[in-house]
Amino acid sequence: MAAEVPHVVIVGGGFAGMSAATGLSRAKVRITLVDRTNHHLFQPLLYQVATAGLAPSDIAEPIRSILAGQDNVHVRLANVTAVDLEARTVEVSTDDGTPESMAWDKLVIAAGARHSYFGNDAWAAHAPGLKTLGDALDIRRRVLSAFERAEWTTDPEEREALLTFVVVGAGPTGVELAGAIAELAQRTLKREYRSVDTTRAKVLLVEGTDAVLPTYTETLRIKAQRQLESIGVTVRLGTRVTDVIADGVALGDTFVPARTVLWAAGVQGSSLARTLGVQLDRAGRVPVQPDCSLADHRDVFVVGDLAAMTQADGSPVPGVSPAAMQMGQFVAKAIDRDLGGSERGAFRYVDRGSLATIGRSRAVADTMGLRFGGFTAWLTWVFVHIWFLVTFRNRIVVMTKWAWAWFTFERATRLVWAPRQRERR
Amino acid sequence: MAAEVPHVVIVGGGFAGMSAATGLSRAKVRITLVDRTNHHLFQPLLYQVATAGLAPSDIAEPIRSILAGQDNVHVRLANVTAVDLEARTVEVSTDDGTPESMAWDKLVIAAGARHSYFGNDAWAAHAPGLKTLGDALDIRRRVLSAFERAEWTTDPEEREALLTFVVVGAGPTGVELAGAIAELAQRTLKREYRSVDTTRAKVLLVEGTDAVLPTYTETLRIKAQRQLESIGVTVRLGTRVTDVIADGVALGDTFVPARTVLWAAGVQGSSLARTLGVQLDRAGRVPVQPDCSLADHRDVFVVGDLAAMTQADGSPVPGVSPAAMQMGQFVAKAIDRDLGGSERGAFRYVDRGSLATIGRSRAVADTMGLRFGGFTAWLTWVFVHIWFLVTFRNRIVVMTKWAWAWFTFERATRLVWAPRQRERR
Repeated sequence: MAAEVPHVVIVGGGFAGMSAATGLSRAKVRITLVDRTNHHLFQPLLYQVATAGLAPSDIAEPIRSILAGQDNVHVRLANVTAVDLEARTVEVSTDDGTPESMAWDKLVIAAGARHSYFGNDAWAAHAPGLKTLGDALDIRRRVLSAFERAEWTTDPEEREALLTFVVVGAGPTGVELAGAIAELAQRTLKREYRSVDTTRAKVLLVEGTDAVLPTYTETLRIKAQRQLESIGVTVRLGTRVTDVIADGVALGDTFVPARTVLWAAGVQGSSLARTLGVQLDRAGRVPVQPDCSLADHRDVFVVGDLAAMTQADGSPVPGVSPAAMQMGQFVAKAIDRDLGGSERGAFRYVDRGSLATIGRSRAVADTMGLRFGGFTAWLTWVFVHIWFLVTFRNRIVVMTKWAWAWFTFERATRLVWAPRQRERR
Repeated sequence: MAAEVPHVVIVGGGFAGMSAATGLSRAKVRITLVDRTNHHLFQPLLYQVATAGLAPSDIAEPIRSILAGQDNVHVRLANVTAVDLEARTVEVSTDDGTPESMAWDKLVIAAGARHSYFGNDAWAAHAPGLKTLGDALDIRRRVLSAFERAEWTTDPEEREALLTFVVVGAGPTGVELAGAIAELAQRTLKREYRSVDTTRAKVLLVEGTDAVLPTYTETLRIKAQRQLESIGVTVRLGTRVTDVIADGVALGDTFVPARTVLWAAGVQGSSLARTLGVQLDRAGRVPVQPDCSLADHRDVFVVGDLAAMTQADGSPVPGVSPAAMQMGQFVAKAIDRDLGGSERGAFRYVDRGSLATIGRSRAVADTMGLRFGGFTAWLTWVFVHIWFLVTFRNRIVVMTKWAWAWFTFERATRLVWAPRQRERR
């Protein structure tokens, strides 16, 4: 590859980073895309992996494989640990190698966000969040193990705590997780246990504000809550978590004994942002210019969940995957325009609507001026999600699994194994 | 469940244990099946998970789910750590609970085998074997990471070692692993790397005896070797591994630098056997009577890979899955006959033939008096394996994936992620 063309380094292979890379497919640049994992993840379906509906490989695809046909991209499996704006380099490290510096002419930071415990990092051990495949498998292991242990404990209090599942945060992820766990307990596992009645499991959805799906319209918020309650989820609004320990959660003065607590509240920008030396917002995100660049650093872009952008009309760009994709595409075009000497223009987010699913065949949708709930919304959700899955093969496999699950209530991937456990030898 | 009926404890949910459990579905007993994992594994396809062709959930199914309709079985996710033949109990422990004793009237030990390093346990760290889903995911991570690291290293010697894959042992598992890795390098990954030519990867299959698939007939052994060589595997017969270190393997006086070494040689019985206090054979297996019971302990059966049985004609029962299933079925019948007061009879292994697959569309078969190789054998292999997959849903999903892989050379589950790695926060 000729060294004369500009080197674009993209940090992160999520929706924003991948869109930036593919958007540059015809540009006269050489690109290095660096990610800690080897795969692009279809995050909207991650809760299905966490609740044993889909396998990791159904919603993930090797980044290399997606970009195989694009000759101007090098893919690298490594961690970007720091950005040096003055030297125009990033620090890159792998598990086994010594850290090295990589120089860039244009830098696209799409490192995403993690969940935030609002300063209570000790809660992380007892209340895992859901951002990566590793997180999803951890949650799956916890949920399924709780039922296993409930089946064999002789202590009734312990059994009740094992059969209590608390989901903190009623945004789309929390709503989807709570709905899926309720259905697992009510339907899928019902016939398989002998000592325990899984339908008596409690699923508690705790939300600090006064509504589920707080960013949705009021009609949908009410619909979503009613649907959650109809499949057995207990919704607690206006309730703040004040402590999380191994034995359960404190909700103000009430302590709820629960062995499984899942965290779906709040996000905070990747720690990489802190190495930029700029003022971050409260959620640790990087404020950007209307063209997604960093103030005073025209060649550095921040896109996706890590970017904090206020549009011309004063509204913030939301941290959702369509916005991340659109920002990635915009930045690719901006880099191309820089090379051609034309103006970048300003990014504008096009909102195509919101969808959230609640259990097996319920959902709420708010799209193209229409707001609807129930089965129609669910079907829309299924088609939209299958459509966006990365490859055609995955679409067929996921469609088969869903059709199967829908008719049988069976969940396809209920595996538990303990990698840490020592083998018998 | 009435306490008066005899309590049958089955240790292990592999082919032998599951067959014993389902064989007792109509018997007047209560059964407890204990396994360390929650799933039954279709082990013949494990190498496909290790080489990124299938997802773990494609070849595994929750034991509970398989036995959901059989009311006389309790399933327990736990480790059986010891057997007390005099007290007629087993010691059971879970990760989080205190160990407890479980009493039995009949005991079926189907704890299986692990690979054996012939006394060189230090090799285990550098040359993982393939027996569990955890093993398969570990191997997958090692193989795929080696290509990733080869793409970015600047040291030509290091690159060569990263692109050298050594498989030790040319039984069916070794042959299947070597064939699948060769094909991954030659075909699947070819277009996706920029600095490295993956087709130059070396796959070395090392075998101590003088043939690949030593238990097969001579025609098939020769066929298998020729097919392996035609897809780029280098076969080294009559070669013993004398050392395995992080940098490679010593084969007598020659040292082969290799970053990926996989162990498919030798098995050794589960360590649970050592708690029985009986004389084990050289491979750590338990010698059993013609009715699969332990000498002097009529109520204790050992079945599957852990049993060492010589039949009336002097031939040993092989450690293969059909033998395990047949033993499990035999023991279920024997227990039922005990209850009815009739004779147990003696176990007889019915050999329905052997099959091994070599890469994408080659295999060798030796079944029903026919011995054949190539595409016909491969098709037979595909149908036999899909047929025995645990559920109908898995059959459809695996069939879809195979058809896809066959036409595209694509591997469906090439995911690498490091659960140990710290998240950026």
